[in-house]
Amino acid sequence: MSNKPLTIGLFGFGCVGQGLWKIAEQRSDIQIKKICVKSRHKPRPLPESYFTYNPDDILSDPETDVVVELIDDAGAALQILKNALQKGKHVVTANKRMLAENLIEVLRLQRQHNRAVLYEAAVCGSIPIIRTLEEYYAHQEITAIDGIFNGSTNYILTRVLDENRTYAEALHEAQKAGFAEADPTLDVEGLDPRYKLSLAILHAFGMVLLPEQIPVAGISKIGKEEVRFARQNGLSLKLSVGAVKEGNRIFAYVLPQFVPVAGALAAVRHEFNAVHITGSYTGKQLLVGKGAGSLPTALAVLSDIAALHHNYRYAYTKYANAASLEFTTDVSVKAWVRFSDGSGNHWQAFTKIIGGAANASGQVVVGELPLDKLMALQEQNRVTAVLIADDCTISTLPADATGVMQQVA
Amino acid sequence: MSNKPLTIGLFGFGCVGQGLWKIAEQRSDIQIKKICVKSRHKPRPLPESYFTYNPDDILSDPETDVVVELIDDAGAALQILKNALQKGKHVVTANKRMLAENLIEVLRLQRQHNRAVLYEAAVCGSIPIIRTLEEYYAHQEITAIDGIFNGSTNYILTRVLDENRTYAEALHEAQKAGFAEADPTLDVEGLDPRYKLSLAILHAFGMVLLPEQIPVAGISKIGKEEVRFARQNGLSLKLSVGAVKEGNRIFAYVLPQFVPVAGALAAVRHEFNAVHITGSYTGKQLLVGKGAGSLPTALAVLSDIAALHHNYRYAYTKYANAASLEFTTDVSVKAWVRFSDGSGNHWQAFTKIIGGAANASGQVVVGELPLDKLMALQEQNRVTAVLIADDCTISTLPADATGVMQQVA
Repeated sequence: MSNKPLTIGLFGFGCVGQGLWKIAEQRSDIQIKKICVKSRHKPRPLPESYFTYNPDDILSDPETDVVVELIDDAGAALQILKNALQKGKHVVTANKRMLAENLIEVLRLQRQHNRAVLYEAAVCGSIPIIRTLEEYYAHQEITAIDGIFNGSTNYILTRVLDENRTYAEALHEAQKAGFAEADPTLDVEGLDPRYKLSLAILHAFGMVLLPEQIPVAGISKIGKEEVRFARQNGLSLKLSVGAVKEGNRIFAYVLPQFVPVAGALAAVRHEFNAVHITGSYTGKQLLVGKGAGSLPTALAVLSDIAALHHNYRYAYTKYANAASLEFTTDVSVKAWVRFSDGSGNHWQAFTKIIGGAANASGQVVVGELPLDKLMALQEQNRVTAVLIADDCTISTLPADATGVMQQVA
Repeated sequence: MSNKPLTIGLFGFGCVGQGLWKIAEQRSDIQIKKICVKSRHKPRPLPESYFTYNPDDILSDPETDVVVELIDDAGAALQILKNALQKGKHVVTANKRMLAENLIEVLRLQRQHNRAVLYEAAVCGSIPIIRTLEEYYAHQEITAIDGIFNGSTNYILTRVLDENRTYAEALHEAQKAGFAEADPTLDVEGLDPRYKLSLAILHAFGMVLLPEQIPVAGISKIGKEEVRFARQNGLSLKLSVGAVKEGNRIFAYVLPQFVPVAGALAAVRHEFNAVHITGSYTGKQLLVGKGAGSLPTALAVLSDIAALHHNYRYAYTKYANAASLEFTTDVSVKAWVRFSDGSGNHWQAFTKIIGGAANASGQVVVGELPLDKLMALQEQNRVTAVLIADDCTISTLPADATGVMQQVA
């Protein structure tokens, strides 16, 4: 292990970048030499001399050991990554989208240039999931990885389910508290957790699964009907991500899901994230922590930088040893599906019907159906699909117009 | 990183040792060359040729790179550790008692012989807590570490609280299921989790706190009164361990504790363990997994062995940088204390009284008092002391003989 401080060139000075700066100021093993930002006109909390607007001031600086990339733009981030590796620098990045959309390229570039690319901060903020998968869970077969990979939507759902807010109120509060962007699409439509799941799948199973391959639905179609069903049955509601390995087949999803109130995921509230890892030796394990925020995410970046002191890089053991894994959507799931069309024979999509109700203004079917059929349904404009976790007990189904519960089948 | 398989000499062939054997058989990077056991007469699942009864067959074997020590006897384990390091071998051990009772010696021996001593399996079985503290949380100030560090007692309490067993029934079931020893004293009196807490404190805060310094009470005095109080108030009951840093003062405890049913710890049931880590950057994080068992614990041993492939050893960063930390028991805690003596003025020990009740057969006081006073009380034969977590809401206090709740103050 070298004791010489690592010289850092930082790209981006937003929430996480400023957190990293604050932490680095207190440490002797790291020196942030220059910060590259885009806008000349934003007010900055540091003197002008720390900043540059020319990436080359960092990339071509022979003293800079590590490039830390914390910008939003995935395209620009990929370019920075490529150039930095080419110039012989290690890269630490939090850009989940850039990484997930370019998995193969990122793997190839690391090998080609013999430099590390570390990205603990890209998945679930402060939860040390990538390194733990690499260093600990690599030694057993992982059969499932699932959890809550997005803090904004978990904050919104907690406010709605536990604290009686409307969806619009909760979204506004999340934005005010800094947990959701002005344009919350990436979060509420499930795209942000999908990038993260793609990265987690690479380290857990060794499979390259591009984000666009993973079935996704967000929380924007959740209505009072789902909230009522949850309350009546002692359930909570989460935007769940999951990837499950059965034999050599893997299926994955980002979908709203009912979970038992007394279970571990229900206890994960507000901006917290959670990762369940199910392994052949350990059974099910859980990691919970803040999924975003300036200092929590900066700590993840810092732990990557610190690991470079002892030349750490990901071994990608699972990827190197991956058998012929096959991606599938041909699995049966249990779900609640609400149709705003009251008259269709929607239950025909289901292979097993647990119950449901219909009246003039809509229909609900609770039952089992293939995942790909569920995704086809939910892509329709006025259909809300919610998974039901295996350990949920359903005692009360929605009532029809006369207030009497009606078995569809 | 070397690709040559590591040659292992194994001491002990109980539950974890056999798990490690099963795992090692499937791997090419590890070879268990010899297993040293004590008894010649126990039936073994492997041919006689694998075993030796002479420690020197392993310790003096120049081909053996790593000694894995998985025996019960702490004194013999320390001797094996010393001899192995002296012979230039790395040591992987799960012996929490040996480590915790000899912290300073173990630290010194590692430095003296320039060899690694790794012990992930010693604390919370399959939860990767030591390495995560070392590699991830070392980069922030830890202000608290707490949780459930013993699977046997958690199994018993879950059966009693959630599944209506008596204490005796639950203990018997735990023994039958292999979660508790024939002599369960180390578990039910809190001594086993106290060893683990001592190790966690070293890596979290850098402080050497010997187990005997840490206030402890187990679960054997828990009675139907505590169970009733928990149910009436929507609480669960756990054997909690905790260490909290306030300024440069650290206090620690192993005590039964009421926790909210909707909280994260209540969702940790049966043989599962949990570790909460509160850090200056991350806030509160949680890790949950199986605290014991053959394969879960063997995976922790395996991850240590695998880390030796790249010359990993603990940096003990916090210990190296520890300011003058001071151990204290002079803190105020909230607690339930039940006295089987109905007439004493027991509430005088409390600085703040929330409520309680008294009748001819006993007294209960719920309130705040100094931790050292609480420990002095609970050491009395017929007193049961239970901490109350800060986030508990208490609406119902025990009733007196007439069934009317009585405020003591």
